[in-house]
Amino acid sequence: MYQIKGSIWIEGKSGAFIGLGRVVLLEGIKKHGSITTAAKAMKMSYRQAWELISSMNKQSKKPLVLTSSGGSGGGGTKITEEGERAIKLFRDLNERFMKFSEKETKGL
Amino acid sequence: MYQIKGSIWIEGKSGAFIGLGRVVLLEGIKKHGSITTAAKAMKMSYRQAWELISSMNKQSKKPLVLTSSGGSGGGGTKITEEGERAIKLFRDLNERFMKFSEKETKGL
Repeated sequence: MYQIKGSIWIEGKSGAFIGLGRVVLLEGIKKHGSITTAAKAMKMSYRQAWELISSMNKQSKKPLVLTSSGGSGGGGTKITEEGERAIKLFRDLNERFMKFSEKETKGL
Repeated sequence: MYQIKGSIWIEGKSGAFIGLGRVVLLEGIKKHGSITTAAKAMKMSYRQAWELISSMNKQSKKPLVLTSSGGSGGGGTKITEEGERAIKLFRDLNERFMKFSEKETKGL
């Protein structure tokens, strides 16, 4: 009947750095190559998505998301290697946290 | 520079059953023998404290908090054995969660 619930995130020098919502946003950008489409899929405004990206980029040594505008191939948004690493780091951490919660729920 | 943060709570049949705020409230009632004083110490309204207590009591087989009014000894509010068990259960769980977070932070 009882169940352990929780949430986990990584803080950087100025507050939240990466958590589930931010990772889902990064994964959306990776999938769609577009902040607008990724934000829409999460029912998030472009402005809000951009603020999250800006917060992540500022708190990381190297940016997680790169935006290029124009050029012969048109503009585009890409996840960097650093971004890929952040996604994997958080997904792995969250997986271990979910296992912790399941084990604790069984022990209730 | 990076740090894992998170929160954890136990859900019952109708949502949150016990988490850090509720445990601090129970501990305050145990200390002061009074909902009013315990609520004030947390800068919480009596009404809000009462709603949390009511939610915990409803979701537990036996109540965690008992209020008696009047009688020769005057009224009073007490934590039951079930309440003591809930406090310990959550404090122990939270301790293990904090160890998990510390270990994960070291591994970042």
